[in-house]
Amino acid sequence: MSEPGRPPHMTPDEFRRYGHAVVDWVADYWSTVADQRVVPDVRPGDIAAMLPAGPPDRGEEFGTVLADLDRVVAPGVTHWQHPGYFGYFPANTSGPSVLGELACAGLGVQGMLWATGPACTEVEIVMLDWLADLLGLPDRFRSTGTGGGVIQDSASSATLVATLGAVHRASGGAWRAAGVDRRYTVYTSTHGHSSIEKAARIAGLGGNAVRIVEVDDETQAMRPDRLRAAIKSDRAAGAVPAMVVATIGTTSTTAVDPVPEIAGIAREDGLWLHIDAAYAGAAAVCPELRWTHAGVEYADSYCFDPHKWLLTGFDCDAFWVADRAELVDALTVLPEFLRNAATESGAVVDYRDWQVPLGRRFRALKLWFVLRWYGVEGLRAHIRSGVALAQELAGWLRADDRFEIVAPHPFSLVCFRLRAGDAATEELHRRLTASGSVYVTHTRVRGAYVLRLAIGSPLTERRHVAAAWALIRESVPD
Amino acid sequence: MSEPGRPPHMTPDEFRRYGHAVVDWVADYWSTVADQRVVPDVRPGDIAAMLPAGPPDRGEEFGTVLADLDRVVAPGVTHWQHPGYFGYFPANTSGPSVLGELACAGLGVQGMLWATGPACTEVEIVMLDWLADLLGLPDRFRSTGTGGGVIQDSASSATLVATLGAVHRASGGAWRAAGVDRRYTVYTSTHGHSSIEKAARIAGLGGNAVRIVEVDDETQAMRPDRLRAAIKSDRAAGAVPAMVVATIGTTSTTAVDPVPEIAGIAREDGLWLHIDAAYAGAAAVCPELRWTHAGVEYADSYCFDPHKWLLTGFDCDAFWVADRAELVDALTVLPEFLRNAATESGAVVDYRDWQVPLGRRFRALKLWFVLRWYGVEGLRAHIRSGVALAQELAGWLRADDRFEIVAPHPFSLVCFRLRAGDAATEELHRRLTASGSVYVTHTRVRGAYVLRLAIGSPLTERRHVAAAWALIRESVPD
Repeated sequence: MSEPGRPPHMTPDEFRRYGHAVVDWVADYWSTVADQRVVPDVRPGDIAAMLPAGPPDRGEEFGTVLADLDRVVAPGVTHWQHPGYFGYFPANTSGPSVLGELACAGLGVQGMLWATGPACTEVEIVMLDWLADLLGLPDRFRSTGTGGGVIQDSASSATLVATLGAVHRASGGAWRAAGVDRRYTVYTSTHGHSSIEKAARIAGLGGNAVRIVEVDDETQAMRPDRLRAAIKSDRAAGAVPAMVVATIGTTSTTAVDPVPEIAGIAREDGLWLHIDAAYAGAAAVCPELRWTHAGVEYADSYCFDPHKWLLTGFDCDAFWVADRAELVDALTVLPEFLRNAATESGAVVDYRDWQVPLGRRFRALKLWFVLRWYGVEGLRAHIRSGVALAQELAGWLRADDRFEIVAPHPFSLVCFRLRAGDAATEELHRRLTASGSVYVTHTRVRGAYVLRLAIGSPLTERRHVAAAWALIRESVPD
Repeated sequence: MSEPGRPPHMTPDEFRRYGHAVVDWVADYWSTVADQRVVPDVRPGDIAAMLPAGPPDRGEEFGTVLADLDRVVAPGVTHWQHPGYFGYFPANTSGPSVLGELACAGLGVQGMLWATGPACTEVEIVMLDWLADLLGLPDRFRSTGTGGGVIQDSASSATLVATLGAVHRASGGAWRAAGVDRRYTVYTSTHGHSSIEKAARIAGLGGNAVRIVEVDDETQAMRPDRLRAAIKSDRAAGAVPAMVVATIGTTSTTAVDPVPEIAGIAREDGLWLHIDAAYAGAAAVCPELRWTHAGVEYADSYCFDPHKWLLTGFDCDAFWVADRAELVDALTVLPEFLRNAATESGAVVDYRDWQVPLGRRFRALKLWFVLRWYGVEGLRAHIRSGVALAQELAGWLRADDRFEIVAPHPFSLVCFRLRAGDAATEELHRRLTASGSVYVTHTRVRGAYVLRLAIGSPLTERRHVAAAWALIRESVPD
């Protein structure tokens, strides 16, 4: 039988030429993104309407494709890397991270098993140990102890995996075969992330299983007395408390839950303690901010997102457990087609058993590139720059009596509102977004509408924060 | 307060220079990967031992980092893009896919909401419609119908989301708050993927909820009579059948379950029908192979992996549902900090409600690049090339009476064994792996040890398959 016509695969030489062009496009994008509107001026359907109804029958020139990055994409995305992007938590990347992602894509390794990519697995093990060093995490989280780290796509997935670990432990493993006991309850604060409820739903516990523990009015952090009371009353009612999620740096205000007290309660009551430090974990690279991580040595699991404040592109959540054997026992399923000598030797880590999906990319490469390019001191400088700028902004806000700061701001997020009230604050928010030059998002604190300004982009310099502040002042409604 | 020292961010010019170097590295890698051992000759711990114990204090030169791709990484990975890689299902990428991933990384957009990246969302909607066209999927899966498509990281995650949809429907939505009813049961064949059991475990149903339906001895496809019997007996015993997963192209042998019959049973009994076409879905781009997709019009959800056989790098699973409103209802959680005008207008898709994680990358870019570079005809040529090579290999196997082909092979996977038995086949497997020039994996069919040779890499040409066959023949133990 003769071979049919070869498909038009891109040759290495073509890849070289077009690859240089895409690299240049990215470099140009970063050089000019500050001139674009942070949030594009598009209506629902505008972008879809620019695209043909179906794929082309025959391949197109790469130049045509590349041109559409300028015609369709750049004017149609929210620019997360813009120096005036202060929304949610910035999901920042950096040159070395993008290059790590490029090498990862080019290698095209799928690291579900050690055997399907030994370096993919081992570089990840080492990078998570490096990060544990960098953050001063406890020894038992290291691969040299009983635990270990793994890259998840997001803190949401880390929370789900932690929830499964908690359910596994609470059931003595019976959950694997028999299904989940709906009497299990999960605790977090008013400002615990929405992914905690989503994880409880996915795990079959139901949203009702999530107990929202009241926060301290001043700090917006979880009240341990209320946690203790909730656990006690749930037990009395026949529930089985299984997990508490403490947050270091809540999404709303970056409040830091009192982890040492919470850990004490979790230990007494046999609950799995998961710490969600998605955003603020990166701060622990600075010794002077490590006080925010008091109590982390008691956690059963901990996660933070290098893709938020540590210059590594999404997706890169770093997740550690104190007992890796327990995690693997919870998640492993071994079909015949995945059996292999390395797995059976027991001498290797198969990361498929540390996560929900089976397949995985070589995401440790971008982390490796970032940690080596910046070094410890470079990463500290980045965090310190964000914290210093936030402090400076807070000073300006305090000096203008039209504004009030609504919560402590130990990191690079400042939450503020107009004393004039919600309507005025919402109007200010609308004006800022409409300006196109800055993007902030909102939350509610003590019921009030509050603006959140989070600093983190590598392109954000002092002048951008100063310009944002000038715009905020000018945009206050009469 | 003065700003602390700026961290050593990579300048656009540095990025340009180093970016060209990484592009060249990838081009060189593809040009030379055929000369490397497919599976590296490393022992557990070898790679980790090559890395320092901790991150450097000060940043390193990029050249040092890049050099470690050659020193540490390339000799330490299994080369999934090697022309002699025939293991599992190949997870193949291509030039345009890698360039789409590069553009995605450079933009650094996080598309959890339409509002956080309108083009990220809308290009994805359109690409999934394009793919639906390409595969001839039913209208109700399109965004113009009641359904729609979304990119998941993997078919495992798609199966989990489908399981959650099934549980949601079976419970009339009560599951969201109250937790899962452990009486629900899930059906798949002996060769259904391990992710079905994993999803059932994660969703709190427990592995016992998964009913393994016997396959036809000849075709290795699910027996509808056994499915019907299992459902009937479960109902009689008080279970609540909730979902059946039919497979188009099982992992073991690429068996095609009889979807029309299974769909009839699912409809009669009110079960959610999910179709897992992770590998073989790509075949439907060829009209002459679309018979494998009979009955897909009855599915509640369907997925396939462009990252397997459609030249798009991992991670890219395409997942469709027939009723998007139901999916969103199952998965949505809306905290204050994610509220926005576009979402509240009801006029947009927020993909965070179609998946487990909250955040997401602009993965539609790589799909867009691939579909445009190859065009429909180019993609068909790729699939046809794989199928033709597999047919040719099967002919060679049939002509040599030491071998037997153990299952139908409509796609690009051929499953075979030595008539001499398991021990001889396992020894043949060991010799092939040790050769370093080809990589095949194994499964069990009717209890026997079987080799799987899956063709798919864009670098694999007829001569590579012929060389693999020559090696196989030479490696047969006496």
